[in-house]
This record gives sequence, structure tokens and C-alpha cells, in this order.
Amino acid sequence: MIKHLLSIDQLSPSQIELVLHTADSFREVGTRTIKKVPTLRGRTVCNLFFEPSTRTRISFELAAKRLSADVINFTGDARSSLSKGESFKDTAQTLQAMGVDAIVVRHSSAGAPLRLSRWVEASVINAGDGAHEHPTQALLDILTIRNKLNRIDGLTVGLVGDIAHSRVARSNIHALTTLGAKVIVCGPTTLVPSDVARLGVEVADRLDDVLPRCDVLNLLRVQFERQRSGLFPSIREYRLLFGVDGDRMKKAKPNVLLLAPGPINRGVEVTPEVADGPNSAILDQVTNGLAVRMAVLSELSKAA
Amino acid sequence: MIKHLLSIDQLSPSQIELVLHTADSFREVGTRTIKKVPTLRGRTVCNLFFEPSTRTRISFELAAKRLSADVINFTGDARSSLSKGESFKDTAQTLQAMGVDAIVVRHSSAGAPLRLSRWVEASVINAGDGAHEHPTQALLDILTIRNKLNRIDGLTVGLVGDIAHSRVARSNIHALTTLGAKVIVCGPTTLVPSDVARLGVEVADRLDDVLPRCDVLNLLRVQFERQRSGLFPSIREYRLLFGVDGDRMKKAKPNVLLLAPGPINRGVEVTPEVADGPNSAILDQVTNGLAVRMAVLSELSKAA
Amino acid sequence: MIKHLLSIDQLSPSQIELVLHTADSFREVGTRTIKKVPTLRGRTVCNLFFEPSTRTRISFELAAKRLSADVINFTGDARSSLSKGESFKDTAQTLQAMGVDAIVVRHSSAGAPLRLSRWVEASVINAGDGAHEHPTQALLDILTIRNKLNRIDGLTVGLVGDIAHSRVARSNIHALTTLGAKVIVCGPTTLVPSDVARLGVEVADRLDDVLPRCDVLNLLRVQFERQRSGLFPSIREYRLLFGVDGDRMKKAKPNVLLLAPGPINRGVEVTPEVADGPNSAILDQVTNGLAVRMAVLSELSKAA
Repeated sequence: MIKHLLSIDQLSPSQIELVLHTADSFREVGTRTIKKVPTLRGRTVCNLFFEPSTRTRISFELAAKRLSADVINFTGDARSSLSKGESFKDTAQTLQAMGVDAIVVRHSSAGAPLRLSRWVEASVINAGDGAHEHPTQALLDILTIRNKLNRIDGLTVGLVGDIAHSRVARSNIHALTTLGAKVIVCGPTTLVPSDVARLGVEVADRLDDVLPRCDVLNLLRVQFERQRSGLFPSIREYRLLFGVDGDRMKKAKPNVLLLAPGPINRGVEVTPEVADGPNSAILDQVTNGLAVRMAVLSELSKAA
Repeated sequence: MIKHLLSIDQLSPSQIELVLHTADSFREVGTRTIKKVPTLRGRTVCNLFFEPSTRTRISFELAAKRLSADVINFTGDARSSLSKGESFKDTAQTLQAMGVDAIVVRHSSAGAPLRLSRWVEASVINAGDGAHEHPTQALLDILTIRNKLNRIDGLTVGLVGDIAHSRVARSNIHALTTLGAKVIVCGPTTLVPSDVARLGVEVADRLDDVLPRCDVLNLLRVQFERQRSGLFPSIREYRLLFGVDGDRMKKAKPNVLLLAPGPINRGVEVTPEVADGPNSAILDQVTNGLAVRMAVLSELSKAA
Repeated sequence: MIKHLLSIDQLSPSQIELVLHTADSFREVGTRTIKKVPTLRGRTVCNLFFEPSTRTRISFELAAKRLSADVINFTGDARSSLSKGESFKDTAQTLQAMGVDAIVVRHSSAGAPLRLSRWVEASVINAGDGAHEHPTQALLDILTIRNKLNRIDGLTVGLVGDIAHSRVARSNIHALTTLGAKVIVCGPTTLVPSDVARLGVEVADRLDDVLPRCDVLNLLRVQFERQRSGLFPSIREYRLLFGVDGDRMKKAKPNVLLLAPGPINRGVEVTPEVADGPNSAILDQVTNGLAVRMAVLSELSKAA
């Protein structure tokens, strides 16, 4: 197995398959009364988060604890030594010198996990770097689709929203096309990169045009802070064109699978009735995320 | 046993008895060198705190760890996904999907723990909801009284201070009257609800009038932020009428037991000489709080 | 063994030796796959930090976890009960009542750990108190020197920077002179106490004058916040007179050992080429810090 998980496009189909297979067995662990295995006993996992993210951090923290690892949280907030001007490299080397075995890193700069992996012997897991990649999110999306629809190959998956700034979109495009799915990206024209077709995806301006062909819809999170940039339409317009409500669902395939990386903005990307309805796999994604992160931590430790 | 601990008034006398009995045995664990039992090994307890509370959170965290559970802290501060507009329900469902076994929740809205309990399969423990209830506080108060005075039935307990806004008062009134104690509430008239007598308690304006009859005094914490509301008298006046100092203690029964939910404001509700004196059980309350929380986590897990 | 570690000057040479010897064995544990020993299983260690310090806190947290202790973090920030006006003594007594076995305390007031040790039965470890002491830092510095140069006795150690406000300097002076090293302190005249020679050290204004005689240089961290005080020269002047770069290194002994308590300000106390060069033991200090803290927690527990 590889030592670091920096991006999806470094993974071969068989490596993706291995992670999904391992995740399936860890998902079973999560259904037991004693949700704990000794796999990483005595190992140390550090969550190094330079951007706030309660959900992803807790998912990784719980994954590590269920593998019996010790976990330390190193958050780049006003109280940390990062605020004393410590460089990223010094932080990395300090964690290395403490004998940390795996570092889960979230950073606002694309490429930060790659740089980190060059400074340390620990395994590095990218938990989101700028607009680059968020590989465990793509892996949990894939796992959820496969468990619900029994395959990836041949499916048509619509990625809806702010494609340009989304690391989730980028990681999903790589993972889905690698495994043989067709990907359609769809969002406001200002938020779909003009050259995205080069990644082998179809581009659509209007969700309603492509909706009937999709087996899966992945509704990207609206980042309200982008609105100030002038690139984003009004929430009202977004909801009208890209929000999924009961009426729009009638145009979709009856068994269309709905995914959304949380936390969702209820009433914007998706209405509550649809988010909580029978087509939604949003909570399965959370469960699968924990299992995927256990699988990644476990598999990477074999290479370390 | 019940599955959730949302309020004291849901508990029968025998259920209260069971928690107190279990807490007694866990208190013994706290005196050992190895203060740990395997009861909740492999279970996950989440502290979900929407209001700051270091003491209560640490008490629950330590209780869970001494039961060998894994603990995650999900604090509703500026860095959490709660600040991204995530709804309470989405947070609840996310924790559920992660397989959390128990959620300890503090919230500024009365009834929030009840709503939470309807969304999740996990056990829900109310760690304080608005001005409604704080059941583990009442249980630890009861345990402390019983261990010191050998009974509850027939005792006279004075609750002193801001009765109207106190979840501690409300939970104590339920617990004490259920177990056969007489309760006298005493505080500034603006802070004693006019209809409180309906709960079966006696109401007094002046502490000195009722002090000689009390076997126990529970001195509620002065919330300085209430002062701005105009309902609260000056600190000087409060101290004069309701603060317990050495002089006032002379009017009380020689063995009167003094309780106070921490952190106390030394020199306001109680002077240091009294708080640290022989009648004070304030630190026993802390020790018993840990034992009560271990008992609650342990007993609820049997119903889950 | 002693029960509390409040300052270096309470330690005899043989007690220092015991800690260093124990630390050596724990450093070996840090090289194993399973970096965990059962020494403190079922014990509770509390990190009580009234000043922010990610590195020191994480080092103690990881040390405690590798000894199998349960760890709780009690940080004196805006969200803690400390902000509700709780006194230091009440916090101490609360931790005592919870059965905490060891308290690691950082505080802006010199002497705070001593006061704490009088209120609790738990072992107290000073993790830095004002400008007074930071004993585990001195122990890890000593351990690093001894492991690199095989002795302390007879060495000449230069402490460079803001001597007046440095607890690291004070603890190092005590430790080094106790073990027979010669200490030279060197810094801006406004930041070197006029009476420091009483501690048995040589005082130098100019680093270049004493550099050729030093076997070890310990470069204290520039606290930028001091600059506002008017006592500190400009960064440019500091760098010119006291910063260690490649040119200045040519005047030093070829095998001079470079230490610096992190996080360093690259380009101020030391240039990157020197900090990352062959004479630097900065990362060994981090590794040794973890081992020293494991040793201290372990040894103090024997007295408790």
C-alpha cells in the first residue's frame, strides 16, 4: 500500500478497491457493542487542522480511537504556537520528533499535505487542501454509491454547484472516472472552470437538462463566503436553478441516489423533505466516512 | 432502566435509588490507584455543549473515560460546523450516523435534550437545558446529602437565590420532594416565581426567617449577567440578605449542611470561611458528581 | 523521589540523574511500533494551562497517554469556568475532588505551581510559571547535551537572549551549575539582570567575545511582545549582535551544540541553514522532551 494519501489521482483502481474492501469490514465493527479493534494500539495520530472542521476532525478522531490509537489535536488557532509565527515546517518536524505515526492535515493551501509528506516519516493524510483535493470524501462517496447501487462502472453521476472551488468535486471526478463512471458537472457558469472538460467530464449549465440521466446527484455545499466575491448568484437564484426540491425530484430517475458533503444548508442545495427522504444517502455518507478513515489509517500504517 | 436522562421528574423514587446506589460503588472506584473499570469499553460518548461549562464537561469526560469509553467533544463555538449554520437536527443525525452511544448535551433552550432524544438511538443525558433542568446536579446533591445526613425523607432543605432562572433549583425541587424532603425556596422576590408554591414548596422572602429550620442549605450561584436585567438586586444587597457568612451561620442548626453548585463566587453567596468550613460539602459534591455521572452513563447503557 | 516538580533548584544531582536515566529508557519506548507502557494506567493527569502553549501541552499530553494515563485538558480561556471568576484555589480543589493524580500547570505568575501544591494531594508539575522556572525544559536540555557530548561537568554553556524574563534561562542556570557546567549568559544589557552573576554565571555583552569558548549555545526565544516594552532592541539589531548565522558559526568550536526552546523564529535567533544544520540538536530536544516528561510523570507517581 502507499504511505501517504495526498490525492485520489495517485491511487490505482485496485488501491481504491482495497480501501473500500477494508472499509466494509470496519463498517461492521461500527455496528458492534464494542466498536474497537487493536490495529493501531500504541500508535499516535495527530489531527493538524489549519482550517476549522468539526465534522471531518471528529470523524478522523473517532476512526483513530476505534483503531486504539492515541490521538492529539493540533489546531491552528489563536492559542497555538502557530500564532507565535512557527513555520509549517517546524510544526511538521516537531510532530516527527515526537514520534507521531500519522498526520491528518487540513490546510487552506493546495499542496500543503504534499510538502508535509516530504518533511516527515509519518504517514500524511490529506483532509482537504485548498481547492485541490479531499480524497477521503471521494472515497466515502464512492463507498456509499457502491453499497447502494452495487457498482460504479457505467453510472452517470452529476456533481452540482461550485465546481471551481471545490476539492470535493476534484477528488470525486478523479475517483469516479478512474472507476468507469460518467461524470456531469453542473453549476453557475462563473463557478465551472472553462477547461474542466479536459478532466473527461461533461459540462452542463442547467441541472434540469441533465437530471433525467443521472443515477447519482452529489450536491456540493454552497459556501456563503463566496457570495461576497461576486462570482456567486443570489441564494434565491441558486435554489431556483440548482436546489433540489420535491418538484425537481420528479424529473429525476425514481431511484436516483442523493449525496451531499455535510453540513448541508437545508433549503438551499436541497430541501428538508428531499434531504430526509428515501433517495438521500447523506447519513450513510457519515457512517461510511468513519469506516473509510479507519481503512485509510489502517492501510497506510502497513507501509510506514 | 430508562434510556435517556432528560429530567428528574421522569424518575421514580426507585430509579433515583438505583442511580445513587450505583454511584456509591463508583465512588469507591475513585479512591483506587487504578480508577478505571471496563464497563463502557468500545462505546463512544459525545459531549455536545452549546454553552460553555468546563466543570460539568470535565466531570462527564472523566466519568466516561473511567468507564473506558471513547470520548469526543463537540463544542458549539465559533470554530465548529455549528457556526456554518448546521442545524441541531443535522448535528444529532451526524452523531447518530457515527455510532455514538451516548450524548451529553448542554443547551440554552429548555427542551433541547428532549428533541435530541427523538432524533437519535443514542442515550441522551441532559447536562443543563436553559432554565429547565440539570438532573445530574440534583442527583449529586441528593447523594451528598444522603451520605452526610443518612437520609432525605423528613429533612428540610433551603434553596437560596435566583429560583426563577435556575435549572438546578427546578431539578432539586423535583428530586427532594419525590424523596420526601421539605423544600423552602428563598430569594429576592423578583427572582422567585409567584406560582412556585404549586410545586409543593414553601416560599420565604427572608433567609433569616427560615434559616433555623433548615437541615441543608443549597446556595445557588449568582449569575452576574442577570444583574443587567434589572431583576437582580445589587451584589451588596444580595450578600446582606442571602449571603452566608460566619454570623449568619450562628443562626443555623449546628450541623446544617452547606451545598453550592460550583464555581462559587466567594464573598457573595458564601464567605470563604464558611465555604471552607466544617459544614461545607462543596467538594464532596464534586467527587459525588463524578460518581453520579459514571452511574448514569453506566445505567443508561443497559437500556440502549 | 520528590512528589512535586516545582523548580530545578529543589533537585539534588542524584535526583536529576534519576530523571535522566529514566528518560533514556522511555526514549527507547518512543522508537517502538507500540509506543505505550502501562505505568500510569487508571491514573488521571490534568493539563491546567493558564497561558497558551500548544507544544508543551501536547508534549505532556502525549507523555501521559504513552504511560496509559487518562488526560484532561483544562485551559484557562474565555470559555472556561475560570472566566466565570472561579479562583485558582477553587479550580485546584475541584481537580483534587475529582481524584486527579497529577496536575501539569502553566501560569503567568511565578510561584503559582507552589501555591497549587499546597492545596492538593496530586503531584504538581511546573510547566512554566512567569519568569520563574520551567524545569522540564532544563531537564530536556541537559538530557540532550549529555546524550550528544557525553557529559555536563566541565562544559561551557552560553545562554543567549532575554535572560531577565526567561524561565528557561533560570532553570537552565540551576541545572547546569548543579551538574558542574560553566554558564555564560549573554544578551542585550537591558535584558540581563545586573545581579545575575550571583547565580554563579559569567556575564557577557557581546556574543562574539565568548562564542569561541562555548561547547553549547542555547538560543532563547525572542518574545516579540517584549519589544513594545522598550527594553528590546530592534529585531535587526538583535539579529546582528545575537543571531546565529553561518558566518558567526565559523567563530564557534566546530562541534558546538546548538539548542533552542521552540518554536524558533527562523532568521532571528538563528538562520534556517544553522537551525537545520549538523550542529543543531533542536529536534532532539523535542524527542527528549517527551521522554523527560514521561520520566517525570512516572517518577513523581511513586511518591504520591
